[in-house]
Amino acid sequence: MNVSTPITSGRRLAITPRVREILSWYESDNPGTKGNLVRLLMTGKLAGTGKLVILPVDQGFEHGPARSFSVNAPAYDPHYHFQLAIDAGLNAYAAPLGMLEAGADTFAGQIPTILKMNSANSLSRLNEDADQAVTASVSDAVRLGCSAIGFTIYPGSDRAYAQMEELRELANEAKSVGLAVVVWSYARGGTLDKKGETAADVIAYAAHMAALLGAHIIKVKPPTDHISLDAAKKAYEKGKIELGTLTDRIRDVVKSCFNGRRIVIFSGGEAKSDANAVLDEIKQIAAGGAFGSIMGRNAFQRPRDEAIKLLDDIIEIYAKAA
Amino acid sequence: MNVSTPITSGRRLAITPRVREILSWYESDNPGTKGNLVRLLMTGKLAGTGKLVILPVDQGFEHGPARSFSVNAPAYDPHYHFQLAIDAGLNAYAAPLGMLEAGADTFAGQIPTILKMNSANSLSRLNEDADQAVTASVSDAVRLGCSAIGFTIYPGSDRAYAQMEELRELANEAKSVGLAVVVWSYARGGTLDKKGETAADVIAYAAHMAALLGAHIIKVKPPTDHISLDAAKKAYEKGKIELGTLTDRIRDVVKSCFNGRRIVIFSGGEAKSDANAVLDEIKQIAAGGAFGSIMGRNAFQRPRDEAIKLLDDIIEIYAKAA
Amino acid sequence: MNVSTPITSGRRLAITPRVREILSWYESDNPGTKGNLVRLLMTGKLAGTGKLVILPVDQGFEHGPARSFSVNAPAYDPHYHFQLAIDAGLNAYAAPLGMLEAGADTFAGQIPTILKMNSANSLSRLNEDADQAVTASVSDAVRLGCSAIGFTIYPGSDRAYAQMEELRELANEAKSVGLAVVVWSYARGGTLDKKGETAADVIAYAAHMAALLGAHIIKVKPPTDHISLDAAKKAYEKGKIELGTLTDRIRDVVKSCFNGRRIVIFSGGEAKSDANAVLDEIKQIAAGGAFGSIMGRNAFQRPRDEAIKLLDDIIEIYAKAA
Amino acid sequence: MNVSTPITSGRRLAITPRVREILSWYESDNPGTKGNLVRLLMTGKLAGTGKLVILPVDQGFEHGPARSFSVNAPAYDPHYHFQLAIDAGLNAYAAPLGMLEAGADTFAGQIPTILKMNSANSLSRLNEDADQAVTASVSDAVRLGCSAIGFTIYPGSDRAYAQMEELRELANEAKSVGLAVVVWSYARGGTLDKKGETAADVIAYAAHMAALLGAHIIKVKPPTDHISLDAAKKAYEKGKIELGTLTDRIRDVVKSCFNGRRIVIFSGGEAKSDANAVLDEIKQIAAGGAFGSIMGRNAFQRPRDEAIKLLDDIIEIYAKAA
Amino acid sequence: MNVSTPITSGRRLAITPRVREILSWYESDNPGTKGNLVRLLMTGKLAGTGKLVILPVDQGFEHGPARSFSVNAPAYDPHYHFQLAIDAGLNAYAAPLGMLEAGADTFAGQIPTILKMNSANSLSRLNEDADQAVTASVSDAVRLGCSAIGFTIYPGSDRAYAQMEELRELANEAKSVGLAVVVWSYARGGTLDKKGETAADVIAYAAHMAALLGAHIIKVKPPTDHISLDAAKKAYEKGKIELGTLTDRIRDVVKSCFNGRRIVIFSGGEAKSDANAVLDEIKQIAAGGAFGSIMGRNAFQRPRDEAIKLLDDIIEIYAKAA
Repeated sequence: MNVSTPITSGRRLAITPRVREILSWYESDNPGTKGNLVRLLMTGKLAGTGKLVILPVDQGFEHGPARSFSVNAPAYDPHYHFQLAIDAGLNAYAAPLGMLEAGADTFAGQIPTILKMNSANSLSRLNEDADQAVTASVSDAVRLGCSAIGFTIYPGSDRAYAQMEELRELANEAKSVGLAVVVWSYARGGTLDKKGETAADVIAYAAHMAALLGAHIIKVKPPTDHISLDAAKKAYEKGKIELGTLTDRIRDVVKSCFNGRRIVIFSGGEAKSDANAVLDEIKQIAAGGAFGSIMGRNAFQRPRDEAIKLLDDIIEIYAKAA
Repeated sequence: MNVSTPITSGRRLAITPRVREILSWYESDNPGTKGNLVRLLMTGKLAGTGKLVILPVDQGFEHGPARSFSVNAPAYDPHYHFQLAIDAGLNAYAAPLGMLEAGADTFAGQIPTILKMNSANSLSRLNEDADQAVTASVSDAVRLGCSAIGFTIYPGSDRAYAQMEELRELANEAKSVGLAVVVWSYARGGTLDKKGETAADVIAYAAHMAALLGAHIIKVKPPTDHISLDAAKKAYEKGKIELGTLTDRIRDVVKSCFNGRRIVIFSGGEAKSDANAVLDEIKQIAAGGAFGSIMGRNAFQRPRDEAIKLLDDIIEIYAKAA
Repeated sequence: MNVSTPITSGRRLAITPRVREILSWYESDNPGTKGNLVRLLMTGKLAGTGKLVILPVDQGFEHGPARSFSVNAPAYDPHYHFQLAIDAGLNAYAAPLGMLEAGADTFAGQIPTILKMNSANSLSRLNEDADQAVTASVSDAVRLGCSAIGFTIYPGSDRAYAQMEELRELANEAKSVGLAVVVWSYARGGTLDKKGETAADVIAYAAHMAALLGAHIIKVKPPTDHISLDAAKKAYEKGKIELGTLTDRIRDVVKSCFNGRRIVIFSGGEAKSDANAVLDEIKQIAAGGAFGSIMGRNAFQRPRDEAIKLLDDIIEIYAKAA
Repeated sequence: MNVSTPITSGRRLAITPRVREILSWYESDNPGTKGNLVRLLMTGKLAGTGKLVILPVDQGFEHGPARSFSVNAPAYDPHYHFQLAIDAGLNAYAAPLGMLEAGADTFAGQIPTILKMNSANSLSRLNEDADQAVTASVSDAVRLGCSAIGFTIYPGSDRAYAQMEELRELANEAKSVGLAVVVWSYARGGTLDKKGETAADVIAYAAHMAALLGAHIIKVKPPTDHISLDAAKKAYEKGKIELGTLTDRIRDVVKSCFNGRRIVIFSGGEAKSDANAVLDEIKQIAAGGAFGSIMGRNAFQRPRDEAIKLLDDIIEIYAKAA
Repeated sequence: MNVSTPITSGRRLAITPRVREILSWYESDNPGTKGNLVRLLMTGKLAGTGKLVILPVDQGFEHGPARSFSVNAPAYDPHYHFQLAIDAGLNAYAAPLGMLEAGADTFAGQIPTILKMNSANSLSRLNEDADQAVTASVSDAVRLGCSAIGFTIYPGSDRAYAQMEELRELANEAKSVGLAVVVWSYARGGTLDKKGETAADVIAYAAHMAALLGAHIIKVKPPTDHISLDAAKKAYEKGKIELGTLTDRIRDVVKSCFNGRRIVIFSGGEAKSDANAVLDEIKQIAAGGAFGSIMGRNAFQRPRDEAIKLLDDIIEIYAKAA
C-alpha cells in the first residue's frame, strides 16, 4: 500500500480486508474490544494497513522529567504529546494516568489512547525482584475514554508471577468492558543478566508468554543475536531456525506469538541522535513481519519537526511493508 | 471394548453403563458439573469406555516457544492443537488462556476444552518455594465455553499451602458454575530432591491430596520404584504393597485416589523419539488401572501423521483395557 | 446412663435434660447452630448423654495414603469411614473436602459430618512457622449438608495469629449460616519444643484460646505431666492445682474451657496395637470430665470388627461416666 | 460528687451536664455511637460523673488460664466476671469473643460490654514485630449487643502500621453501625526497650496516636518518669512540662489527647497483693485528670469480696475527683 | 493582585478568570471534584488569586505531642488549629482523622478540610522500606465533609510501589465521590541518602510522579542545589536548565508538573525562630511560580499573634506574585 494515498482521513475509511483478517484472529473478544481494535487499526496514516505506530510517553515515570523532557522543553506539557501523535498521523498514544487526565477533554475522540497501568521508577533499588507499581484502574481507562490498557510484566523477576496475576485481573476486567489489552513484556530480574534481557530466545519467550496471558497487542524490544538459555540454544539448532539477522529474529518473535495471530510491535530502543540509524533498524524490523513500532524517546526528544519527519519515514517503511 | 467400533461419533452415543458408574462416584456435584464430566467421557474414540486421552499444550509457557514448537513448526499455530486433538479423536484439549482464546470461535463445540489456570516458566529461579502464576479466572473458562479448569499444585513446596488455597477458591467457584476440576499434582520444592519428585510414595501422596482437595480428575507423573519418605517405606512394607513394576505402582496410585473413585490420568513424560518406548509405558500404566493419559510433547512435537498414529495406538491400548 | 438401653435409635429420642443443659452454655448461638449441636449430641449410641465419640479421617492428608490406610486396605475407600462411624454408633464423622464429597449422597442424613477446613502435610518442611492450607469454604460445608466446620490452629507457631484470623472469618461465617465450630488446638512451632507441645500447661492454654476464639467444641491432645512455661509452673503451684495423674490434667483442661461450659474432647493419640492401652487412657480421660474422644488411627487402622469392638468399649466408658 | 448518693441505679438517671459536655467532644459521631457512649457513662456507681471503671478480662489469652485464674478459681467461669462487674457497679466489661458469647444471654442488657477484637499470647515468640491476632469482627460485636469494640495497637513495633490499618477498617465499620471504639495503645517492639515502653514521652505519644486514629476512649499504662526519645526530652524541657510526679505525667497524657477532649483511662498494672498500693496509685492518677481505670488482674485475681471492696474504694476516689 | 482588597470574604466572590484557568487544567474531573477545587481556591485571603496557603497539622503523629505542641500549649487543642486557619484567612486545613473529627461539627462549612489519609511516626524504626500507616478511608472524608484527601508517598523506598498502589485505590475512589487529591511526595528510603531526599532532581522527579499518579495538588519540600542522580545531572546540563537559585529550582519543579498544569505547593520546612528567614524563603519560592505554601510547624508552634502575622506576610507575598 502506498502511503501517499489519502489514508490520513483514516477513521472514515471502510475497514480493509487486512484489518478484517487481523480481527478474525481475536476469536474470543466481545464487540466492544473488537471495536477498540478497529479504532487502533483504522486511525492515522497507517489506517487500514494492519500496521501501527504508537507514541508512548512513560519516560517521565521511568527516568524523571529532566532526563525525559529537558532536551526538548515543549515536551514537559502533556498536550504536546497528544498533538504530536495526532499530527504525525499515529495510531495511538499511550501514557500513565496523569498524562492522559491532563488532555482527556481537549483531545477527546481525536486519537485512541492506551492507559499505561503500571510503572517503575529510577529511584527504586529493587532489581532481582523487579516490579512496577500499578497506578491506574480499569475504571480510570473507561472514564478517560481509552481504547486499551497497557501493562508491563518482567518475566524472570522474582515478582513475575505476582505481576502476571495482576495482569490476569486487569485484563479480565478490561475485556469485560470492551477494552483491548497491550502487554509490554520485558524479561528482567532473577538470575537474568543484562545481555540475557534482549537475547533472541528470551525476547521470543517473553512475547509468547504475553500472548498466552491473553494480550491483544504485544510489545517487546528488538532482539539481539545472543541466546541466553542453553536448552533454547539446542532447540533453535535442532529446529534450524535462523537468527543471524535482526529480520530473522523478528520473524521468530512474530511466529512465537501464535504463528502471527497476535499483533507484535517493537520498541524504538534508546534515543539515537542519528535518524538514519533508527530507520535502518525499522526497515529490518518491518522486513521480519513486525506489525509496527512503538516509538517514545526517539520521537518526543527530537524537535517537533524532526520528530514528525522521522515518524513519517517510519510510517512510510511500514506502509510499504503492508 | 474394541476400538474398531464407530465410537468416534462419540457425542451421539448414549451414556454407557461404565460412564454412569464413574459419574456415580461424584456424589456431591451439580448437574452442570456432571454434564461436563459426561462431555469429557463421551467424546472422541474412547467415548463411553471410561478412559481418556487428553492433549495438553502448556509447554510454551513452561519451556518457551522454540523448545516447544521448533521441532514441528506447524505447532506454533494454536489452531494446530485444536485440530490435532479433534482429528486424533481425543477426549479433550487443555491449554492456557491465550491458546484457547485463539481458537475459541473456530472450534467452538467441537472438543471439550480445559482452561489451564496457572503456569510456571523457565525464566523463574524460584525453586524451594516453587509456585505458578494464576493466569486465568473461572469467568474466563465460562466465557470460553470450557468444560473444566486445570490447576497445578506443587506439594512439598514452601508455597504449597498458598497454592492449595488458590485451588480451593477456584474449585469452589468452578463447581458452583458447573465446571469440572482437573488437578495436576506435582511434588516439588522444599526439601524434596529430584528423585523424590517421582518416588512411588510421593506420587501416591500427591494424587491423594488432589483427591482430598476436591479434584474430579487427577494428573500425576508415572512413579518410579524409589521411596522417598522413611515412614512411608515402613508402611508399604507393613501393608505388603507391591511396588516392583510400574503396573504395581499405578495400581497403588489409583487406590490412593479414594480406592478408584476418582479419575486418575498420567502424563506422558519427556519427549521420546521412540514411539515404542512410549507405548510400552502406556501398556504398563493401562494395566495398573489408569483412566488414561495426558500426552503433550510426545504428541505435538512429532510430525502430525506420526502423532496421530501414536495417539491411535495409545487409544487402542486404553480401549482394550476398558 | 447404661449403654445397653436402646439409645442407638438416638435421633428419635427426645432431647435429654443433660443435652439441654449443655445447649444452655451456648448463649449467643442462633437456632441453626443449636440445631446442629443437637444433631451432634443426639446421634449414635451416646445420644442424649452429653458425651461424644467422633471419627476423624484426615490422616491421608497429614501422613499420606500408605501410612494411613495400607494396614487396613478397605480404609482406602471413603465410604468405609462413613459406614464405620454409622455402624459403630458414633456421634459424627470428620474429614477433608474430598472425603466428604465422595460419600455425600450415599450417606446423606445418616450421620452428622464435620468438614475439616484446613490440613497440613508431611511433605512440607515448615516448622517454626507451622501452618495448614485452608482447603474448603463454608459454602462447601453448607452444600455438603455438614453440621459443623473443623479448623486446626497451632498456637506458638509464627503463623498462629494468621491462622486465628482465618478461623475468625470462617467461624463468623459458619455461625451466621447455622453451623457449629470445632477447633483442633495443637500448640506447635516458634520456640516450643516437642515436649512442650503436650505439656499440661500448654494443652490447657491451647484449649482456653480455642474457647476464647468462639469454638463450640474443642479438641486437644491428652496432656503429659510436663510443664513448659515457668510462669505457668508458679501459677499451678500457687493455685495448688493437681496435675499428677492424667485425670487431674484432664480436669484442669476442662476447667480451662470456661469452667466446663464448652465441650472438650481428646484425641486418641498415635495408633496403639494394644486396645487395652487405649481403653486405660480413655478411662482416665473420662474420669477427668472429658466430653468424649475423637479417635482416628486407633479406629480405622484396625480391622473393622476390632475397631467396632474398641469403639463400643470406649462408648461404654463414656456412657458410664455420663 | 459523693458516691454515697444512690447513683447505683445509674441507668435510670437523666444525663448529667458533665456527660453532656463529654459527648459534645465527639463531634463527628452518629446518634448510635453517642448512645453507646451514654450507656458507658451512665452505668454503675460512677454513672453521670464522667468517670469510668471498667473490668477487662483478656488475661486468659495473654497469659493462659492457670496464670490468670488459678489464684481465684471461680474466675474460670465467664459468668463470674459479668457478675463481678455488675455487682461492683462498674461502667463496662471488656473481654474476647468467647468470654462474651458465654454470658451474652444471661447478662443481656445488664452491663455494657466491649468486645476485645484482638489478642496476643505468651506462646508467641514474636517480639520486634509484635502483633496480635484479630479474633472478632464488628458483626460479632453487633450480634452480641456490645456497646464498643476494643483494639490493641503496638506503636513502635514493625507491625504497627499494619495494626493501625486493621484498626482503621474496624473503627470505620464500628462507627458506621453505632459502636464506640476503645483503643489499648501499648508501645512495644522495634527498637523500643522495656523501660521505653512506659516512658512518660512514649505513653503520651501512644495515647496521642490513638486519638488521631479516631478512638473514643484511650487506654494506656501509667507512665514512669523515664523519657525515651532525645528529641522529646528537649521538647519537654523547652515547654517546661512537669513530669516529676505520676499526677504530672497523667496530666500530660490527658493533655496529649486533644487537650482533654478524649476519654483516657489507665490500666491497673500488674497484680499487687497490697490493696493500698493500688489505691495510692489510683489517687495520683485521678488527681492528674484521668477519666478512670481499667482494672483486670487486680480485680478478678482477688477473692470476690476483696475485689468488690477494692473496686468500691477506687470508685470512691474517682467519684471524689469528679 | 493587592491583598488589601477585601478578598477575605472570599467565598462570596465570583470565580476569577485565573481560577477558571486553573480549573481548565483538570480536564478529566467530575463537577464534584471541580467544586472542591473551587472551594480550595476561593477561600481565605488568597481567594481567587490562584494561590494557596494551607495549614497542615500532622506533626503530632510524626513527632509526638510534646515535640509538636509543648512550645505553644493552646495547640494541644484540635479547635485551636481550625480557628487559626480560619482567622489567618488560609485556604484549607489538613489533618489526620482524629483531629478533624474533634472539630467537624463546630467548624463545619467554615474552612475546607483535607483529610490526611496516612501517617508515619517516630517510634518506627523502618527506614529503607519506609512506609506510613493508612489511617483513614474515603468514606471518612465524605462523612466529615472534607474537600480533599491527602496522601504521602515515599518514592525511593522499598515500599514505594505498594504506597502508590494504595494511592491509586484511594484517589480513584476519592475522585468518584467528588473529592480532590493532594499528594505529599517525599523521596526517602532505599539507597537514597539524606542529602538526596531534597536534591533538585529528586524533588522534581518526586513531584512529577505525583502528577502522573493523578494528584490535583502536589506538595514537595523546597529543593537544594544538590543533584543526586548522575543521569539527571547530565540531562540538566544538556538541557541547560538553571538550578543555581531556589527560584530556579522551584521553576524547574513547577515545569516538571505538566509544565505548570498542576498546582504545586511547598512545605515550610523545619521550624525557624526567625520569621524573616521564613519569609525570605517564601519570596524565592513565590518568584519561581509556586502556587503556595503549606505551613505547619512555622505556624502553630509560634504564639497565635505571631503566627497570624507571619501567615499574613506570607499571604501578602503570594498575593503580590499572583
